[in-house]
Formats: sequence, C-alpha cells, structure tokens
Amino acid sequence: MSQPLYVVKIGGNVIDNPEACSRFLEAFSKLSGTKILVHGGGKVATQIAAKLQIETQMVDGRRITDKPMLDVVTMVYGGLVNKNLVAMLQAAGCNAIGLTGADGGIIRSVKRPVKTIDYGFVGDIEEVNDIQVNALLHSSLVPVIAPLTYSNDGLLLNTNADTMASAMAVAMAGHYDVNLIYCFEKKGVLSDPEDDNSVISSLTPGQYIGFKDSGAINKGMIPKLDNAFAALNTGVAKVTICHADELREAAIGAAGTVIHLG
Amino acid sequence: MSQPLYVVKIGGNVIDNPEACSRFLEAFSKLSGTKILVHGGGKVATQIAAKLQIETQMVDGRRITDKPMLDVVTMVYGGLVNKNLVAMLQAAGCNAIGLTGADGGIIRSVKRPVKTIDYGFVGDIEEVNDIQVNALLHSSLVPVIAPLTYSNDGLLLNTNADTMASAMAVAMAGHYDVNLIYCFEKKGVLSDPEDDNSVISSLTPGQYIGFKDSGAINKGMIPKLDNAFAALNTGVAKVTICHADELREAAIGAAGTVIHLG
Repeated sequence: MSQPLYVVKIGGNVIDNPEACSRFLEAFSKLSGTKILVHGGGKVATQIAAKLQIETQMVDGRRITDKPMLDVVTMVYGGLVNKNLVAMLQAAGCNAIGLTGADGGIIRSVKRPVKTIDYGFVGDIEEVNDIQVNALLHSSLVPVIAPLTYSNDGLLLNTNADTMASAMAVAMAGHYDVNLIYCFEKKGVLSDPEDDNSVISSLTPGQYIGFKDSGAINKGMIPKLDNAFAALNTGVAKVTICHADELREAAIGAAGTVIHLG
Repeated sequence: MSQPLYVVKIGGNVIDNPEACSRFLEAFSKLSGTKILVHGGGKVATQIAAKLQIETQMVDGRRITDKPMLDVVTMVYGGLVNKNLVAMLQAAGCNAIGLTGADGGIIRSVKRPVKTIDYGFVGDIEEVNDIQVNALLHSSLVPVIAPLTYSNDGLLLNTNADTMASAMAVAMAGHYDVNLIYCFEKKGVLSDPEDDNSVISSLTPGQYIGFKDSGAINKGMIPKLDNAFAALNTGVAKVTICHADELREAAIGAAGTVIHLG
C-alpha cells in the first residue's frame, strides 16, 4: 500500500464564481495529506479576448486556439487565474506553487496535428515528468496546475484540464495510491440531467454504457467519464466526480459518484 | 567558500525585443552552475492595459497599481512574459520553473502604506523564504521570477524587479557565494550618459557619490546602484551591471561595471 495522493480538478464554472471558489479553496486547503490541484480556465479568457477584440473561433462546437487566443489563455490561465488561486491558498496556510506544464518540464505535449480541423495551438500530452512532480511534493509543495503544456520546441499549448488531471493521476500512480477527484457545479453523475439530486453513487463500465444509450449521460460528461475509466485502467486507485462544495466528503467516499471498474 | 549562485536580473527593454531576448536566454541557459533569473515587466502590460481601456495612472512619474492594473500585471508578468520565458528556456535545455513571490511563499511583502501618495497594490518586501528557494535549487530547478509578491492576506502585489533580485541575492547569501548580475540595454554604468562606450569598469561608494554629484549617474541608475551597494553591504559576494548580450563575459568579470565596497 503506497502513500495516498489526491489529484483534484476544479472546473471553470466554480472559478468564475468568487464565493464558490473561495469555499472550494478553503476545503482544498484543509484536505490533509499530499495533494495536487488542476484547474480549468473559466469564462474570463473569453471575456478578455472580447475586450481585446480577439474573435473566439469555434469549429463544430470546439474552440480554436490561434496565436492571439494562445496569448490570452497564457495570460489568463497561467497568470490571472493560477496566481490568484496560489495567493489565496497561501493565505489559507496551503503551500501552493502555481505551474503550467512548461514549469519544471512537468507536462510535455505535441501540437495537435492538422487533420480535417486545425485546432491551432492545442497540445496533446506526450509525457508527465513524475520524478520532478514527486520532488516538488517531497518539498511539501502543493502544485496548482494551469491548463497549459509545452512542446520540445518551446511552444506553450492550450490543453484540456480534465485530460491533464487524468494524465497527472496516471503518471503518479507508480508512486502513490492516487485518488482522482473531479469537482464541478453538480453533485455527481446524474441519472436524470433535470434532477440535481439524482446522483449515481457508483458507476461501472456496464452501467455507463446503459446510461449513455438512454441519453441520461451525454455531452461534456462523456469525455470526463472516458478520462475517468482510462485512469482506473492504468493504475489510478479511485476516481470520484462531485460538487465543489463536497470535496471533503467525496475524499472519504461520502459524496459524489465513485467510478469503478466493476 | 560556499558554492557559487548567479542571481541574474533581466530588464523589461530586453524582454520587449524578441531577438535580444532570445540571445539573452541562450546565454543564460549556457551559464553553468546554480542560477536564478528575475525578470522585469516590459511595455506589454501598458499596451494591453490601453487595449482594455484601463488608464495608466502616473503620480510624480511613478505608476499607480489600481485593481484593474494589478490584474493586467498579474496576467502579463505572471502569465504571458513568465511562461514564455520558461517555455523558451526549457527548449534550450534549462530546467526553468516560473514563479511569483506567492509560489511556494518565496517572497512575501506588505502593501505599501499610504502616506502622501497611494501607490495602490504595490508590495514592499518583508521576507524571502530562502529555505524553500534552496529546496528548488537542490531539485536542479532554475527559478524564473516575475515581479509580483504576495501578502499574508492573499493579495498579489506589484513589486520592483531590481529590488526583488537584490532581496533574493541577499537572502541566498547565507547559502551561496552570490554573484548578482543586472542585465539591461547598456554596457554598464556610463561615465558619460551620451557615450555608450564610456563604461566604468569598477565603481566604489566614493566614486558613486562623485558621479552622482557631477550628474553623470542619474535617473533610473540611482535606485539600481543603491540596491547594488545595499546587497554588497549585506553579504552578496559580487554585483555587476552589464549589457544583456554580455552576460557570459560579465559572469567571469570580463564585461560590465563591477560594484565594489572599496
């Protein structure tokens, strides 16, 4: 039995709400033991891009990261959001250190190849430097990771925060019993998307297929759950999806949806 | 004799020039041994503030950091500038980690008290966490520090990069023989401000007073030199002021102005 490690992902909707974000950070700072926070971007990048008259380009519902938009997400995710989270955690007694994938070379990616769509400066993760991350954890630091990675040729690349959390959890599974917790604005995976209290307390691959077929699980929840099952299949001990207000309960299995291999 | 440590400060004018910045980063990455980079802001923050229609307020020639401007410098210094420097250094084989004072709690400050002028969200340094910085250096990381600090109550604060470099050099002097090098767009301290080749190769406190009295040393060079002498007086082994293109020569005493106690 290895030492436990929490890898917690906090979504953009929570970051956009100062009160909800503040409650979450207090709970995260009180989570005892070794931990890593991965955060999403929130709507601030889109708002600042609009003020700078940079057009947000969408293709098939997905954002394209051209060079001006890459600069905006570097500023907002890597600067404004990340550094404010770090300063607030430090004030709460949590020794946070804000990082992108480039810092310490912790998450290297490659620019997504152009097939039918050119997503621009978007990175697909190639390698997590688990040794470097472990050295930071052994210095009693709490990494707070923004959704940006870097390529061998020195480019910063926009990267999905859910995927980064999952890749980090998998890479650290060789050193720790990893508990990967996705926090967002719902109480877990819902069996009825219209009913916020219809939380599925545990979910196996077979049940997942059933809920997808019935349409109960759809849209943004699908890549999140695909990431969750992939993490379990590659050594992560436990994956939970929960409300940001229920982090501490979810950490002991008393809230949210626990994802199982069956 | 302790192990040597370079604390190098690079000014905003060099960062604003992509070719000059790229040459500097290549030289910095090749500087062998333990090292820390502290960077200034450059003009990008002012340009982005203007695009966001945030007015740059100046009182007696000094910038006031109100809340909208604090957000801009957090984005630009802590995000855009810092993370691009880190990604470029990583590509050059230097294991850079981008930090503000808040990250790992390395540089804590207090918001400057309001006397005749309210400078807004500006921090005066209270404490450098030399133990934490040393732990990062022992992990073979190269800290790249943006000109932002944090207060006990979780505020980010705009802080002068020259002062941060000096405070970092002083704090690390208990662990290392610190060589503090200020790199900028001139070849050193000039005896004739109109002649770029009139570099004073070494400067003592007595000579400094003479050059100030004659007006040869004036304006922005005065706080830089005051910082330099203060650093020497509190344990820093060597301080050099040089051109960003001559970092490697200055590191071995073959370029720039070396500041002496006499």
